[in-house]
Amino acid sequence: MTEVRTPLVGIVMGSRNDWSVMSEAKAILDAFDVPCEARVLSAHRTPDEALAWSAGAAERGLKVLIAGAGGAAHLPGVLAAKTLLPVFGVPIDATALQGMDALLAIVQMPKGIPVGTLAVGKAGAANAALLAVAVLALSDPALGARLAAWRETRKREVLGQTLD
Amino acid sequence: MTEVRTPLVGIVMGSRNDWSVMSEAKAILDAFDVPCEARVLSAHRTPDEALAWSAGAAERGLKVLIAGAGGAAHLPGVLAAKTLLPVFGVPIDATALQGMDALLAIVQMPKGIPVGTLAVGKAGAANAALLAVAVLALSDPALGARLAAWRETRKREVLGQTLD
Amino acid sequence: MTEVRTPLVGIVMGSRNDWSVMSEAKAILDAFDVPCEARVLSAHRTPDEALAWSAGAAERGLKVLIAGAGGAAHLPGVLAAKTLLPVFGVPIDATALQGMDALLAIVQMPKGIPVGTLAVGKAGAANAALLAVAVLALSDPALGARLAAWRETRKREVLGQTLD
Amino acid sequence: MTEVRTPLVGIVMGSRNDWSVMSEAKAILDAFDVPCEARVLSAHRTPDEALAWSAGAAERGLKVLIAGAGGAAHLPGVLAAKTLLPVFGVPIDATALQGMDALLAIVQMPKGIPVGTLAVGKAGAANAALLAVAVLALSDPALGARLAAWRETRKREVLGQTLD
Amino acid sequence: MTEVRTPLVGIVMGSRNDWSVMSEAKAILDAFDVPCEARVLSAHRTPDEALAWSAGAAERGLKVLIAGAGGAAHLPGVLAAKTLLPVFGVPIDATALQGMDALLAIVQMPKGIPVGTLAVGKAGAANAALLAVAVLALSDPALGARLAAWRETRKREVLGQTLD
Amino acid sequence: MTEVRTPLVGIVMGSRNDWSVMSEAKAILDAFDVPCEARVLSAHRTPDEALAWSAGAAERGLKVLIAGAGGAAHLPGVLAAKTLLPVFGVPIDATALQGMDALLAIVQMPKGIPVGTLAVGKAGAANAALLAVAVLALSDPALGARLAAWRETRKREVLGQTLD
Amino acid sequence: MTEVRTPLVGIVMGSRNDWSVMSEAKAILDAFDVPCEARVLSAHRTPDEALAWSAGAAERGLKVLIAGAGGAAHLPGVLAAKTLLPVFGVPIDATALQGMDALLAIVQMPKGIPVGTLAVGKAGAANAALLAVAVLALSDPALGARLAAWRETRKREVLGQTLD
Amino acid sequence: MTEVRTPLVGIVMGSRNDWSVMSEAKAILDAFDVPCEARVLSAHRTPDEALAWSAGAAERGLKVLIAGAGGAAHLPGVLAAKTLLPVFGVPIDATALQGMDALLAIVQMPKGIPVGTLAVGKAGAANAALLAVAVLALSDPALGARLAAWRETRKREVLGQTLD
Repeated sequence: MTEVRTPLVGIVMGSRNDWSVMSEAKAILDAFDVPCEARVLSAHRTPDEALAWSAGAAERGLKVLIAGAGGAAHLPGVLAAKTLLPVFGVPIDATALQGMDALLAIVQMPKGIPVGTLAVGKAGAANAALLAVAVLALSDPALGARLAAWRETRKREVLGQTLD
Repeated sequence: MTEVRTPLVGIVMGSRNDWSVMSEAKAILDAFDVPCEARVLSAHRTPDEALAWSAGAAERGLKVLIAGAGGAAHLPGVLAAKTLLPVFGVPIDATALQGMDALLAIVQMPKGIPVGTLAVGKAGAANAALLAVAVLALSDPALGARLAAWRETRKREVLGQTLD
Repeated sequence: MTEVRTPLVGIVMGSRNDWSVMSEAKAILDAFDVPCEARVLSAHRTPDEALAWSAGAAERGLKVLIAGAGGAAHLPGVLAAKTLLPVFGVPIDATALQGMDALLAIVQMPKGIPVGTLAVGKAGAANAALLAVAVLALSDPALGARLAAWRETRKREVLGQTLD
Repeated sequence: MTEVRTPLVGIVMGSRNDWSVMSEAKAILDAFDVPCEARVLSAHRTPDEALAWSAGAAERGLKVLIAGAGGAAHLPGVLAAKTLLPVFGVPIDATALQGMDALLAIVQMPKGIPVGTLAVGKAGAANAALLAVAVLALSDPALGARLAAWRETRKREVLGQTLD
Repeated sequence: MTEVRTPLVGIVMGSRNDWSVMSEAKAILDAFDVPCEARVLSAHRTPDEALAWSAGAAERGLKVLIAGAGGAAHLPGVLAAKTLLPVFGVPIDATALQGMDALLAIVQMPKGIPVGTLAVGKAGAANAALLAVAVLALSDPALGARLAAWRETRKREVLGQTLD
Repeated sequence: MTEVRTPLVGIVMGSRNDWSVMSEAKAILDAFDVPCEARVLSAHRTPDEALAWSAGAAERGLKVLIAGAGGAAHLPGVLAAKTLLPVFGVPIDATALQGMDALLAIVQMPKGIPVGTLAVGKAGAANAALLAVAVLALSDPALGARLAAWRETRKREVLGQTLD
Repeated sequence: MTEVRTPLVGIVMGSRNDWSVMSEAKAILDAFDVPCEARVLSAHRTPDEALAWSAGAAERGLKVLIAGAGGAAHLPGVLAAKTLLPVFGVPIDATALQGMDALLAIVQMPKGIPVGTLAVGKAGAANAALLAVAVLALSDPALGARLAAWRETRKREVLGQTLD
Repeated sequence: MTEVRTPLVGIVMGSRNDWSVMSEAKAILDAFDVPCEARVLSAHRTPDEALAWSAGAAERGLKVLIAGAGGAAHLPGVLAAKTLLPVFGVPIDATALQGMDALLAIVQMPKGIPVGTLAVGKAGAANAALLAVAVLALSDPALGARLAAWRETRKREVLGQTLD
C-alpha cells in the first residue's frame, strides 16, 4: 500500500472489514495522484500502535489523517488527540444502529480536539479524501487545478443525465 | 480525594464539570466504605496521562474502573483498552443531544474490549458504583452483607412511600 | 449445556431465537475454560422461574449473570432485582426498531439496581463474557493471564491485517 | 388511598416521584366514581411485592391495572406477567432521554404478554384511566353513560374555545 | 371473514398490505374462539366509512376494536374518536422509518381519546388480540380459563427450550 | 376572527394552546392582507365538526387549509381526507418528545392524501402561511408582488445584520 | 421528457438514482394529464444551473416545483430560495440513516422560505404530485373534477379489498 | 469585523442569532492571531450573496470557510458547492429538534462536495476554528507552534483540576 513517494495522507481504519468503505478514500486520492498510506489500527485493540502512528505522522511527512470507524467509533478522536494535523472522520455503518452510533461518537468531540466529520459510509470516505485534497491544494496549485477539473467533470456528468 | 487505605475503585471523568454527576459514584462507595480515588483525565486532552493511569491501575491495587464522559465519550473505552480490570461507563448528558451521543459512544464497543455501561446521568453514576460493589463483594462477604442491607433499606423506603 | 464443574457464569435469554446471538458469550467462556450454564427464561412468560433462578444463582456458585433480550428487554433488570451478583445485559436486535428499544430498556435502569450493558448484538454478547472473565480474573490470576494472552492475540491479529 | 368500596382499578408506579404524573389517572377515576387503589411498587427494588400485588389483583376484585414508570420502565410488563387482567402502561419522562426510553421499554412487549401503552406523561396517565373506564363500561351501562357525557363535555369545551 | 356468531372484536387496517401483520390478531382470536370481523378501512381514503364503522361498532355488538396502520398512522385514533369502546392500536413497519412513525402517530394521543398501543408489527398484532381477550374475559370466566391455559402453554414452551 | 371579506385560508388547530404557535400563520396572512379564518377543531374530540368544516371549506370559498397539531397529530391528515384543497401541516412541539411525534404523524401520509408539511413550531406556522400566499399568488399577481417585496425585505434585513 | 404543451410542474432531483422514486410524481401528473418536465440538477454539483432553473421557472410557465433529494437534502430549499412558486420536497431514503436525514434537511426550513414536505420515498413523490394537482385545480375546475374522480376510485379500491 | 490584514478564515452564519455560538470560532482565531472575517449570509434568504461570497472567497485570500446554521442547515453545503476551499460546518441547536436536524443536514453531504462537520453548538464552533488553525499551520510553522502550546495549556488545565 505504501508508495515510493512520501505519503501525504494517512488512511486508518479499525478493522479490515472497514476497507470496503475506506477504499473509496484511497480511490479518490489515487485519482488525484496524492500519495497515501492505509493502515488497520484499532483504538481499542492496538491503542499504543494507534497513538504512536498518530504521534509520528507529521514527522513522517503526512499532512492529513483520515480515520474510519463504526460503533463506538473512537479512532478518529484518539488519533486527533496525538497530532496537530487535521483529522477527518468517517462514520461506518457497522452495527444494528446503522451508523448513527458511529456518527455521534465521531462528531461530538469536546472543545479542544476537533475531528472534521463526513457522511456515514462510502460517500463520507470519498469526501474525506476530497477534503484532504482541498487542504493540500491550498499550497499546491496544480492539485487545485485537478480538483477544479474533477468538479467540472462531476458537474457535466450531472447535467448529462437523462431520465428514461 | 485519595484515602489512606489503598483505593479499590478508580473514578475518572473527562472534565471537572462532570463531577456533579460522578460524585454520585463516590457517595455510594463512601457509603459502603470502599476506598476509591477520583481523577479528571481526558481521553482527548490528556491521552498519555489517561492511558498511563489505566495501564497502571491494576498494579496500584485498583480492582474496578468507573469512567464518566459526555458527547463523543471515548474515555471509558480508551481506559478499557489499556487494562484488564472491569471498566464501567457512565454517559453524561452534556450536549444538545442530551446524552444519546454519550450513551452510544460508550456502549457500542467492538468485540474484544468491553465497557459495562450504565444509565445516562446520576442514576448511572450511582449504579456504576453499586456494580463495582457487587464485583468486589464476590470476594468480600462483609461487603456483600452491606450490599444486601443497602438493598433491603431501599426496598423498605419504596414500601413506605405513601401517596398524598 | 451444564458442565461437570460448577458453572461460574449464567447465561440467560428470553427466547431460543436469541441463542444465535448469546452463543457468542458461551463461545468466549469456553475459550477461557470458564464453566457456564445457559438457559432460556423469560421475564414475561416464565417470571417465577426467572426470578427463582436469579435468587438462587449465588448459592449455586454462579459469580456473574449475563442476560440477553430484545424489544422491551426486561430480563436483565428483572434478574438483577433478585440477586446481588453483577449482572451484564446484552440488547438484541429483534424488532423493527433494530435494537434501540432493547438498548434503552436495559441500560436505563433506575438508581439502586445496576445492569452493566454491552453493545447491541453479537459483539455485546462476546463482550459480556469478556467482562465476566475480567471480573472473575480479579481473584484468579491464571484466568487473568489467559485474558492478557487473548488480548495480545487480538492485537497481533489487527496488526497483521493487510489491505488488498 | 384505599376506599370503602372494592377498588376496580389499581394504579401502580415505581417511585413516589411518579405521582405528579400518575395522579392524573386517579383524578379521572375519581371523576367517574370508579374506586381505585394507588401504590408505589418497584419492579426492581421490590420485585416480590410487585409480583405478589399483581398475582393477587384479580382475586382482590381489581379489573384493570395501570402502571407508570420511567427509564428502563419494566413495571407494566412485569405486572402483566403475573396477571390475566388487562394492563395499561404509562411511560414517564424521568431521564435525560425524555421518555423515549420508557416508551420503548413499555410498548415493545414480546408476543404473549401485552401492555396497552398510552402517551408519555400526564396525557397518557389520564388516558390510561379513560381506557380503564371504557373497559369497565362494557359491563356497566351507567358508567358508559358517564363516559359519553364526559366526552360530550370535552367536545363542547373544544367548540367553545375562541382565539384572541 | 364475518362469522355466524356476532363478532366481539373488530380488526381494521388501512390497507390490504397490512393483513400479513394483522392476521396475527385474527389467528389469536380464532385460537380463543372469539368471533371477530376484519376490515380494510382507511382514515384517509375512506374516512366516512371508517368513522361510520366505528360509530356503529358498539351497536353491532363489538366490544373491542383493534386497528393497525403504518406511516402517519391515524386509523386507531380516528376510530377511537367515534366510539366509547376500548381501542387498541398496532403500529406497522411500512415505511423507510421502520415503524417509529407509526408508533408515535398511534401512541401519543392527546388527553381525552385513548388508544392502547402495542408493539410494532406481528408481536403487537397478536398482543392486541390477547389484550382484547383479557378484556372480554373480565365477564367471561370460560374465556379467562382459556387465557390462563394459553399462558401456561407458552410458559411450558419456554421452559422446554433447549440450547444446541 | 372571521372577517368581512370571504376568508381564503383556513387555519385550524387542535387546542387553544396551539394558538401561540399558529398565530404566526395568522400574522403572516394579515401582513399580506389575505383574509383568513382561524378555528379550534380537534380530530379526536370533535371529529364530526372537523370533518364537516373541511368538507365544506371549498364551497365556503377557502382555497388553502393550514392545520397545526402536536403529539399524535392527526388533524392535518384528517382534514385532507375530506377536501380537495391543498392542506399544509404544522407540527407543534407539545409533548416530551419535542415535536418529533407530531412531525412524523403529519408528514408520513400514505399515497393518495398529501399534507405539505412545514417545520416544527413557529417557523413552520409562518411558512405554512407563506406557502399559502405562494399558492394564492399563482392567480393573484398583486399578491405575488407583495410576496416578492416581502422576500426582498427579508433579504435586506439579513444583509444589514452586523456582528458585535 | 419535455412535452409539446408548456409544462406546469417541474420535477427536479439531485441524481439519476432518485428517478426510481421521483418517477412516481411523473406518473401521477401523467395520469392527470398535467404537463411536466423532469430534470436532474444538483444543489451541490450544479448549483448555478439549479438556481438558474428555479429563478426562471415562473417565467417559463411552471406553476409548482417538486424536488426530491436524499442525505443532506438541500435541493428543495435551494430552489425555494430562488422562486416565488410553491415548492414541494420529497425526502429520499438514500443513506444508512434511512431518510431521516433527508426528511429533517428538507422540512426544517427557517421562517421565510417554505418547502411543503411530503413523506419519505415513493408515497411522498406521488403525494407531491397530487398536492401540485390540488394547487393547479384551484384555477382549473376540470382538473379538480379529475382529482375528485381519482380520489373516488382510490376509495372504491379500498372498500373493495377483501381479506383472504 | 474585518481587520487590516487579509482575512484567512471566513466565518458565515445564517442569522444574527447564531452569533452567540459562532463567536466561539472568532474567539479562537483571535487567540491564535489568525485574521478572519465574520458575516451573516443566508442560503435561503440571500442565496445570491451567499454564493457570490463563497465563489470569490479564494480570490480574496481566504483559505478556510466556517459556516454555522440551524434547522435545515444548508449554508455549509451551499458554500462548499461554490468553492474549492475546505469548508467546515457547525450545526446549531436552534429548533425543537435540538440540533439533530442541523447535524444531519450538514454532515450527510453527497459524494463530491465535502463539508467537514463539527459538534453541535459552541464546542463545534470552537473546534471548527481549531481545525482551520490546523490546516493553516501546515504551511505556517509559527502557527503550528502556537497550536502546540495551546494544546499543552489545555492539558495542564485538565491535569490541574481538583475535585471538591
